[in-house]
Amino acid sequence: MDKIRVGILGATGMVGQHFVQFLQGHPWFEITALAASGRSEGRSYSQVCRWVISPDMPSYVRDMVVQSCEPGLECDLVFSGLPSDVAGPVEEQFAAAGYWVSSNASSHRTDPDVPLLVPEVNPDHVGIIEHQKRRRGWKRGFIVTNPNCCAAPLAMVLRPLADRFGLSKVMVVTMQALSGAGYPGVASWDILDNVVPFINGEEPKVESEPQKMLGQLEGDVIRPADFTTSAHCNRVATRNGHLEAVSVALKRSGLTGDQVVEALSSFRALPQELKLPSAPELPIVVRPEQDRPQPLHDRGAGRGMTVVVGRVRSCPVLDWKFMVLGHNTIRGAAGAAVLNAELLKVKGYLEP
Amino acid sequence: MDKIRVGILGATGMVGQHFVQFLQGHPWFEITALAASGRSEGRSYSQVCRWVISPDMPSYVRDMVVQSCEPGLECDLVFSGLPSDVAGPVEEQFAAAGYWVSSNASSHRTDPDVPLLVPEVNPDHVGIIEHQKRRRGWKRGFIVTNPNCCAAPLAMVLRPLADRFGLSKVMVVTMQALSGAGYPGVASWDILDNVVPFINGEEPKVESEPQKMLGQLEGDVIRPADFTTSAHCNRVATRNGHLEAVSVALKRSGLTGDQVVEALSSFRALPQELKLPSAPELPIVVRPEQDRPQPLHDRGAGRGMTVVVGRVRSCPVLDWKFMVLGHNTIRGAAGAAVLNAELLKVKGYLEP
Amino acid sequence: MDKIRVGILGATGMVGQHFVQFLQGHPWFEITALAASGRSEGRSYSQVCRWVISPDMPSYVRDMVVQSCEPGLECDLVFSGLPSDVAGPVEEQFAAAGYWVSSNASSHRTDPDVPLLVPEVNPDHVGIIEHQKRRRGWKRGFIVTNPNCCAAPLAMVLRPLADRFGLSKVMVVTMQALSGAGYPGVASWDILDNVVPFINGEEPKVESEPQKMLGQLEGDVIRPADFTTSAHCNRVATRNGHLEAVSVALKRSGLTGDQVVEALSSFRALPQELKLPSAPELPIVVRPEQDRPQPLHDRGAGRGMTVVVGRVRSCPVLDWKFMVLGHNTIRGAAGAAVLNAELLKVKGYLEP
Amino acid sequence: MDKIRVGILGATGMVGQHFVQFLQGHPWFEITALAASGRSEGRSYSQVCRWVISPDMPSYVRDMVVQSCEPGLECDLVFSGLPSDVAGPVEEQFAAAGYWVSSNASSHRTDPDVPLLVPEVNPDHVGIIEHQKRRRGWKRGFIVTNPNCCAAPLAMVLRPLADRFGLSKVMVVTMQALSGAGYPGVASWDILDNVVPFINGEEPKVESEPQKMLGQLEGDVIRPADFTTSAHCNRVATRNGHLEAVSVALKRSGLTGDQVVEALSSFRALPQELKLPSAPELPIVVRPEQDRPQPLHDRGAGRGMTVVVGRVRSCPVLDWKFMVLGHNTIRGAAGAAVLNAELLKVKGYLEP
Repeated sequence: MDKIRVGILGATGMVGQHFVQFLQGHPWFEITALAASGRSEGRSYSQVCRWVISPDMPSYVRDMVVQSCEPGLECDLVFSGLPSDVAGPVEEQFAAAGYWVSSNASSHRTDPDVPLLVPEVNPDHVGIIEHQKRRRGWKRGFIVTNPNCCAAPLAMVLRPLADRFGLSKVMVVTMQALSGAGYPGVASWDILDNVVPFINGEEPKVESEPQKMLGQLEGDVIRPADFTTSAHCNRVATRNGHLEAVSVALKRSGLTGDQVVEALSSFRALPQELKLPSAPELPIVVRPEQDRPQPLHDRGAGRGMTVVVGRVRSCPVLDWKFMVLGHNTIRGAAGAAVLNAELLKVKGYLEP
Repeated sequence: MDKIRVGILGATGMVGQHFVQFLQGHPWFEITALAASGRSEGRSYSQVCRWVISPDMPSYVRDMVVQSCEPGLECDLVFSGLPSDVAGPVEEQFAAAGYWVSSNASSHRTDPDVPLLVPEVNPDHVGIIEHQKRRRGWKRGFIVTNPNCCAAPLAMVLRPLADRFGLSKVMVVTMQALSGAGYPGVASWDILDNVVPFINGEEPKVESEPQKMLGQLEGDVIRPADFTTSAHCNRVATRNGHLEAVSVALKRSGLTGDQVVEALSSFRALPQELKLPSAPELPIVVRPEQDRPQPLHDRGAGRGMTVVVGRVRSCPVLDWKFMVLGHNTIRGAAGAAVLNAELLKVKGYLEP
Repeated sequence: MDKIRVGILGATGMVGQHFVQFLQGHPWFEITALAASGRSEGRSYSQVCRWVISPDMPSYVRDMVVQSCEPGLECDLVFSGLPSDVAGPVEEQFAAAGYWVSSNASSHRTDPDVPLLVPEVNPDHVGIIEHQKRRRGWKRGFIVTNPNCCAAPLAMVLRPLADRFGLSKVMVVTMQALSGAGYPGVASWDILDNVVPFINGEEPKVESEPQKMLGQLEGDVIRPADFTTSAHCNRVATRNGHLEAVSVALKRSGLTGDQVVEALSSFRALPQELKLPSAPELPIVVRPEQDRPQPLHDRGAGRGMTVVVGRVRSCPVLDWKFMVLGHNTIRGAAGAAVLNAELLKVKGYLEP
Repeated sequence: MDKIRVGILGATGMVGQHFVQFLQGHPWFEITALAASGRSEGRSYSQVCRWVISPDMPSYVRDMVVQSCEPGLECDLVFSGLPSDVAGPVEEQFAAAGYWVSSNASSHRTDPDVPLLVPEVNPDHVGIIEHQKRRRGWKRGFIVTNPNCCAAPLAMVLRPLADRFGLSKVMVVTMQALSGAGYPGVASWDILDNVVPFINGEEPKVESEPQKMLGQLEGDVIRPADFTTSAHCNRVATRNGHLEAVSVALKRSGLTGDQVVEALSSFRALPQELKLPSAPELPIVVRPEQDRPQPLHDRGAGRGMTVVVGRVRSCPVLDWKFMVLGHNTIRGAAGAAVLNAELLKVKGYLEP
């Protein structure tokens, strides 16, 4: 099988670097184009990219010439790691020019005709792509998005709870890792021996995206799910892995903790059934220890694609509370967008 | 005026060290006895105490001989920084022997006849001391306690909200500093690049103590306030200052954010009125910035005795949400116990 | 006595903020002008300065209007916290216009006619100022500089060793704090769980400045001292306080450790004799513990103006080795420049 | 081929855990016995071992019953991760009982008849084993040791320098990771925002072990190499990877930096030639960047078995200076002892 040719938009940023790393050796996708902002254009990736993740920059991309973020790239599928303040129109240009766009940026997440996709949560939302193409007059190209790095693992955990027990309220307090701010991101002076109880633009995303993801596709419309979410977002001094303290109110009462744990642990979804290359064997793991999940120890679960839950117990104010951990740059960014593309391929959306 | 002679129980531990530091130059109290566990007995404080806070050990205590934690200490008032697993009977022995005990340990906090005291919150609860003495047959001695280091600042913030608007539900997620675990406490291996989402025994305290503190003293009984609290407690890599993300449901609806802020900012209480030596000018400060309070910058407010609040905004699930910061070893431990003793003195409970 | 009117160049940067903080309540100097780069001009200090140190911005400067860094400021003495890439010509303009300039920038440190001044080390080097004025044709203004933040405490420790025992070689490995990089400075992503073994431009300064400081003023020339220095400079995750592992070869052999300790401990110099307002009582403190100095506990010694030494012991390769700690933003920056100005005032260089 | 049966002494400690992790899937060795101090005896490894490294405890050891550290274990080869204060006599008991002992403890490192072995540095020192057995009257068993976690990478770098250019002086300042102190090890309170400039017992090891390793085996005697080493040892807040700032004086002068880099980069030794399972392809990598090696990015080189060098440049005091990084729990502990055993096997010392 010929691999699908892939371009990375925003290839020199931290999310772009994670795309490059995550796609190394991918069985279906092959990076053939790297694009970044004007200054970098025309020089090799190793010259313009200050690589800030471990291990070293893969050798096969070192000499690729970085191009500008405009249609014309030699590829069919583009992963967008662009900053949200520039991603919007650029991604539309690519889609209009016939590229399939899987974006990590927030620009189009709230567009009614754009899926906010997590393959374990709402794979059927890809159905709105046809409407998107018709409405926008795009022949071949389209845009799908993955959610915010906190909303992604949260939605995965809410999916089986909503399905089994009905969901009415969600309260989440996040302790988010440094990599979520990109590079250079958070100044060390601001975070060593500190917590910053604010992340610009984050809470509105966490409070609205889960409802869209758990919403119902009805014809050409995604009808948001009817629960309410409240979020406090904090930055802490961890490198990777967003930890979330979650309390939920469910429609069904009289549950035991074991039932809640079982609903989470036994959750399997389409990516697992289809054995998509980036799908973890277990989308959710529930740890039995009283002090897990921890970012340091659990962010690597399932190569960063498994959501780890722990401390499931009853909540005196809502019904149940527990901790959730997701790897923000994998399950919450690069891995999420790649898994979306894998789903699209299997569903026939990436046909030449 | 002669100063009241003070003994410190658990003087070599981290809370004990904070008592020593906090009492330096106190206008009413003077340390005349230091007591610690058996091994330390009979040697000078500078020999047995591994001093772990800055600045250096005050010179006036260096040569004091450490005694065992038994009645017989040359003092009238004792501050107990003992670990909760040993504090209970020791403190009772001291009270029975006629000492006034102001304890930071949790052992007696839930005793129905022992005040769980924050002078800004429930100064009238000292009224139960007479009942305690009668009931236990103590002539002169008694025990008062200060709350858990998270519950203390939380109760201070809940007091004006409950008074003005009525309180029905409280959801709190804490991000607690390393000093809360004492010394050596948390292993660096466990917390660098990590968050530990569990603190042994902490959540039950945070979930129950506020109700007792905001309860009503009726005759010989403290009737707990009728709101519900849910807590998730986490350890983060900060040195001092417990940060709490709080959401509350109030009985009164239709409030504006300004009204909530005003209720908190304008809060003054008996310690301020009495100008107690350790009382901060402002018990609560509300910061206007979008990213405060932060442990690093705000834990020193009011010499560690002011509670700093920020980000007051409406909560989609309950009614209002905001961040609260309290200095855990000052307002949540040593400073709390000293302020309690100051209140007792002014109220006439420390008369020879 | 009327206070001398002071202007701060680079007032919004981290060093500038330290000048503002350090000068609060100064008995001789009063800030009357704040200057920063073009963008900030004309707006109040509280509007344009993102204050990043604790405690809060002093209220007396909040409403001062920030001006551009050009002569015309209402003041006589200026402290320069400008970045070294712009400081050079700006400071010359101020001196030419008659201002007395005490600079923390490196631009003029190596100028043969500019003192590289630490009042405890080389107070007589102020003598070259007259030559500087003559040579440059400046009537009233002049420039003095303080050394690099690692070189300052190092030179203070080398002074008594050189005086007593003769000095031939110095090997220093630094572990430097985050504040040394200014703000935003080091990205948290680069330093959490890491050490960066390189600081741009630092090693040449540490390897050359001590020789100038310990040099001899002969007529119009400062003849460098004839020892050699080698430096490895590293960035570590501490907030303040540069720690240095130092080995030295001395001209005199047969010394005991006690003699070395005594030479350091007993060191007193002109600022102590003159009781300059910012001079610490003890310029050098030698700690007896086997594990001091530590940045966290010792950076505050003498309000950040005392250099703390520890672990004096023989070196198998050179002669003696020990640890040195200096507060980089106080003794290594703002405090250094202010102490220099205090010396200048007492020596009569700041006469109207 | 049947695998050699392996026992781990001190299996529940941090070094023991690294042995368990490192030996997973080893082609020649198989863990058949786990031993630890008395309290743990008779219970399963998963019950008694607080596993503190990532990823999770390998499943194949979870149910193994922990035994006491006494001969009788079902194995032939033992790796000792015992604390040095107990290792000495225990290891001798095992050797006397016929076990081959590869120890990470320091107890026997200075014994004249015990090799202090790094296969890249002094593989011929295994020759002294016969003398050891004769002298101690051991029929089958013997003890080999690996060096201190700082001395190991240092010796690897000194080997080619000494061979090519002659070595006379070594000055090393270490910045050592938290894992070097075991678990719980360094209190977080002692190291967050701090550096501790002292590690108990460390400097004498770093100052003496390289000379033994680079010494000459002459008959039954290892004659130490005739250079001098001076060490300052510091603890910093990194998880793994000891970073060392090294300056050396060489016997040969007139070298260029390229020659020094080439000597290091081209170094290959017996383990590479023999392709021992744990030998890295490159024992030393020299990074060209100006700011490497860094613990975070370089400790994983060669699965933790490669020593990474950077910043090779001339030293004004000695001749050359550079940075060295070694993974302390792999190249400096578990991996070192395993590589030693691999060498012993190939050399025929592990024959039934």
